[in-house]
Amino acid sequence: MKKRIISTAVLFMAVLVSFAQQALWDRQAIVSPEINADNTVTFRLRAPKAVKVEVTGDFLPAQPTQTPHGTFERPGVASLSEKEGVWEYTTPAPLPSQLYSYTFIVDGQRMNDPANVAMIRDVASVTNVFIVKGDPGDLYSVNDVPHGTVARRWYDSPTLKEKRRITIYTPPGYEADKQSYPVFYLLHGSGGDEEAWISLGRTAQIMDNLIAQGKAVPMIIVMPNGHTQNNAAPGESDRKYIPAMGGGPRQAVASMEDSFGDIMKFVENNYRVKKGKAYRAIAGLSMGGMHAAAISAGYPGTFDYVGIFSAPPIASMRTLSGDDAVKYAEAFLKKLETQKKNGYKLYWIACGNTDFLYQGVLTSVKKMDEIGFTYTYRESGEGHIWKNWRIYLSEFAPMIFR
Amino acid sequence: MKKRIISTAVLFMAVLVSFAQQALWDRQAIVSPEINADNTVTFRLRAPKAVKVEVTGDFLPAQPTQTPHGTFERPGVASLSEKEGVWEYTTPAPLPSQLYSYTFIVDGQRMNDPANVAMIRDVASVTNVFIVKGDPGDLYSVNDVPHGTVARRWYDSPTLKEKRRITIYTPPGYEADKQSYPVFYLLHGSGGDEEAWISLGRTAQIMDNLIAQGKAVPMIIVMPNGHTQNNAAPGESDRKYIPAMGGGPRQAVASMEDSFGDIMKFVENNYRVKKGKAYRAIAGLSMGGMHAAAISAGYPGTFDYVGIFSAPPIASMRTLSGDDAVKYAEAFLKKLETQKKNGYKLYWIACGNTDFLYQGVLTSVKKMDEIGFTYTYRESGEGHIWKNWRIYLSEFAPMIFR
Repeated sequence: MKKRIISTAVLFMAVLVSFAQQALWDRQAIVSPEINADNTVTFRLRAPKAVKVEVTGDFLPAQPTQTPHGTFERPGVASLSEKEGVWEYTTPAPLPSQLYSYTFIVDGQRMNDPANVAMIRDVASVTNVFIVKGDPGDLYSVNDVPHGTVARRWYDSPTLKEKRRITIYTPPGYEADKQSYPVFYLLHGSGGDEEAWISLGRTAQIMDNLIAQGKAVPMIIVMPNGHTQNNAAPGESDRKYIPAMGGGPRQAVASMEDSFGDIMKFVENNYRVKKGKAYRAIAGLSMGGMHAAAISAGYPGTFDYVGIFSAPPIASMRTLSGDDAVKYAEAFLKKLETQKKNGYKLYWIACGNTDFLYQGVLTSVKKMDEIGFTYTYRESGEGHIWKNWRIYLSEFAPMIFR
Repeated sequence: MKKRIISTAVLFMAVLVSFAQQALWDRQAIVSPEINADNTVTFRLRAPKAVKVEVTGDFLPAQPTQTPHGTFERPGVASLSEKEGVWEYTTPAPLPSQLYSYTFIVDGQRMNDPANVAMIRDVASVTNVFIVKGDPGDLYSVNDVPHGTVARRWYDSPTLKEKRRITIYTPPGYEADKQSYPVFYLLHGSGGDEEAWISLGRTAQIMDNLIAQGKAVPMIIVMPNGHTQNNAAPGESDRKYIPAMGGGPRQAVASMEDSFGDIMKFVENNYRVKKGKAYRAIAGLSMGGMHAAAISAGYPGTFDYVGIFSAPPIASMRTLSGDDAVKYAEAFLKKLETQKKNGYKLYWIACGNTDFLYQGVLTSVKKMDEIGFTYTYRESGEGHIWKNWRIYLSEFAPMIFR
């Protein structure tokens, strides 16, 4: 018996070594990314056969890139240098505190860093991430504070005639206490799904930390899937997944705006929520910002708090151009008049000053000025990126339900 | 105003095109994998600069591979052929229904399929997945049936002196009804964490489908993190993540086995559960199978149902070799005597006949025979792979709480 056990043990360890050697047991372990003592960061990749290895990510300055559609800001690209099959790049200066995303490009092909277990999916791609500690990196980190719960549930949408998946954050203590809580509906953009705000948005970490610091009140956060042609994230859907950004048939029987009532009904029937507009907030990024504007105007007297992140409020993804867009804007302005009469506590519009939608946002707020619709305008640097949306969430959440 | 709106719209669409072109809007869209009408599968990758493109995955026959530790079964590798920068491979025969994982290897570097949005993380790596419909593929798919809820919660472990994350599946209807449910503790292997059974294991899909078909009773499934040196999956932990398989300092103050009582206490205090051994099951794969054996023997009279998947029950990851392993086995056999006296309804041991632990499992069951400890032995083909663990879960869950 002794021999058998030992032989099994040796086999077991040997196979662990063999299975894991790529990422965990590399002959000479690769550390990547390495956050150095001075907050410069070193990236490393073992790729002895590669001719050219680059890294791209939001830690590099964005660069104007010529495309057939015009000039756009794209993440920068840096080249790694090779020594004995290991490629390496160190940032020339310390990086400010932040959650950063990056990807290697090996001979023109994007690939993840096999040495970094931290990665986040964003619909069609997975990128590696790392956090440089400090402010705001610590806010996006899991800290030793009370944690809320993140549940993936399915609700029934009679309007869309289907079950749909939804992500719900309940604050620390929700399961044990008997209190009712205010509800914040938080909507993703065209490139996202019901996972987006939890994964790239770091909503659970941000809210756990803001609540622990007393900077935000405990609240329930509801993150639905805003693409009514899909009922869930890739791999969680009961049909062939239709990529979210443009393309593909959109055969949904109703829009996000028209089916939103099903979500509210589900939440108010299934959670201990405070009811009334003083206890409801809605915000969204990009397409979700347009949704938040349309829903807060289209469900009168429902929301006291509205956040529009990186989107022109007076626009819709369904009528982006031509006469339809003009008709939408005219009808929307009438709804804003009603929203103004009904009253609200905060209408917060945030945009980056290099965002490709920046001019559209300025056009929208000018129209709002003309009809005397009050709002708070927050302009940040940079553009249409998650870095900004995490900042906007961190600033918006403390202002609501106060 | 009209001009502005149109200009914003054009910009918006242009940027969507520009952002998404890699994966979603490729000039000539790449479809990969394509499941053909006859269930052959075609893989495609655009890589004009590559010299050699291969695909590896569990759809290819495993091949014996020589390593310094001996000969092991590894997933096969197939070469793609190139035409105008697009590489392609079609399986020579139809694939049986299954959930398959695969990865491209481009000039020696592993990379994900940029055309496939379905992917699953397994600790240190992300692989693409696809399902060939039929039996058992349909069981692993989201179907239009009532869905349970999957919650990521944090519980307090006084034994480990920390908060730990845990994944909990509650069956369809749990939130709305007042019933109590039996509890099934389901443990991951050395390479996993509290996400493993939900992601690669497809537990939510399997249980939703088995319950809808009346093949399993509604139950709560508790999936803790079995690595006591980590308190959560990568990116969800409040400390530097220690890769799970071997390596790295293990500074946990107590083992999974010794701290398991904290998990049971949390579940029984926070969920509507039926109490008593008739309503508790425990199972695990590989390291988790050893945990399930040790916990069911070490918490006498607690579990009527025990499942050991691809692991020798009479072994522990903590004492894999030498005199310690022999002492562990001797002490464990005494505990089995007690477990036998206390009684249980099902002790189910399953292993693949090419598993590297197969001989160890046979040694364990031989020892159990010698002391008259009854069990059910289920031998499958193939080895230490998720395909087998999904099968074992699908077979074990219907047998419990009956």
